[in-house]
Amino acid sequence: MQSFEKRTTALDTSQPSIRHLQDLIRHKTPVAVQVPGVGELEGILHWQDIDYLALKQDENRPLTLINRAAAATIRALG
Amino acid sequence: MQSFEKRTTALDTSQPSIRHLQDLIRHKTPVAVQVPGVGELEGILHWQDIDYLALKQDENRPLTLINRAAAATIRALG
Amino acid sequence: MQSFEKRTTALDTSQPSIRHLQDLIRHKTPVAVQVPGVGELEGILHWQDIDYLALKQDENRPLTLINRAAAATIRALG
Amino acid sequence: MQSFEKRTTALDTSQPSIRHLQDLIRHKTPVAVQVPGVGELEGILHWQDIDYLALKQDENRPLTLINRAAAATIRALG
Amino acid sequence: MQSFEKRTTALDTSQPSIRHLQDLIRHKTPVAVQVPGVGELEGILHWQDIDYLALKQDENRPLTLINRAAAATIRALG
Amino acid sequence: MQSFEKRTTALDTSQPSIRHLQDLIRHKTPVAVQVPGVGELEGILHWQDIDYLALKQDENRPLTLINRAAAATIRALG
Repeated sequence: MQSFEKRTTALDTSQPSIRHLQDLIRHKTPVAVQVPGVGELEGILHWQDIDYLALKQDENRPLTLINRAAAATIRALG
Repeated sequence: MQSFEKRTTALDTSQPSIRHLQDLIRHKTPVAVQVPGVGELEGILHWQDIDYLALKQDENRPLTLINRAAAATIRALG
Repeated sequence: MQSFEKRTTALDTSQPSIRHLQDLIRHKTPVAVQVPGVGELEGILHWQDIDYLALKQDENRPLTLINRAAAATIRALG
Repeated sequence: MQSFEKRTTALDTSQPSIRHLQDLIRHKTPVAVQVPGVGELEGILHWQDIDYLALKQDENRPLTLINRAAAATIRALG
Repeated sequence: MQSFEKRTTALDTSQPSIRHLQDLIRHKTPVAVQVPGVGELEGILHWQDIDYLALKQDENRPLTLINRAAAATIRALG
Repeated sequence: MQSFEKRTTALDTSQPSIRHLQDLIRHKTPVAVQVPGVGELEGILHWQDIDYLALKQDENRPLTLINRAAAATIRALG
């Protein structure tokens, strides 16, 4: 049996964590994300999806994609 | 075949670990969470969901979201 | 399509490892669990579930929940 | 029951991160990929699939396959 | 909908790696298993299941369960 | 409900990475595989399956199985 499955999976907004991050994005709250082996990355979250967080570390730099699995902790700096 | 599936997955409260954490949350028991590459984070667990634990490390600081996969050990400090 | 699925998943006792750990729990055999980035934790396993091992490191301390994915090795000290 | 399933899974282009990386590939934008335990790898992304990113670090060297799970952060150097 | 599913999943012996390990077990071939953050563990593999490898490091010591995900490399010492 | 499922899952050859590795195997191209916490392993890939890469590091030594999840980067040395 061959199944070609284009899974379009949406974020599960029933999860408090997804809504918490959505608030931080909406309010452009500065955050710190700890990435073991890389360090603590600070900036504004622009968006989140199933696998990545998009962080704007500096107005003059492009977005940094952070692998959700690599983001050990996320906390608002507000 | 394209399936748009908005999976709303609840915590599996048949698991002893989920209930154990639920008790710690309900009783506001101080805990220590070991996060390899970050350190030991202490505070009160406010909530848990499928992917994250929400820890209040200090009354004057916002919640810290801890990626469940990054939380190697969790123990009550009570 | 929205599916609310409360998955109640039991431990797969057909796996030798689950039965091996169940024996250690039943016989209260002292064990050592290596958790990279944390160290070697010694104690008595009280229970196991899908995602965590519950270790009693010391009679006077609460249980320590160890994330199964973080427990690199488990060996009896008996 | 034995199921032989040749799962052909396509990239989920509904995810912003997949489209973001697709743009970087299309525009041959130089990127830096942080791989904990290995270092920061710089180059041009040639393609992405479910499990790997293909990075051309140097015109005279073959492609480097980077395990998506090992790529903690990805940012454009443009 | 609540589904109580006791998934009994067998090892996929169509995979060359499972058969390779099965040979090492059958022939009691000494092996070395690299476990990042723990070190290199040597001994005889007694069995394997979905999630763990069982290694006899020394005739006088109990089995060591190694989490498959933590076993970065496995090689015969024969 | 108990389901005994012997999942025989084939490599998804629609993925460019699987085909890329298949080429390296077919042409016996020397490769370097970075395994965080272990180091860089060089040799010839003999085969790949769902969970492991089989590397011949030296004609006089047995195969080394590398856990795919532990192989952070793979690049041809050719």
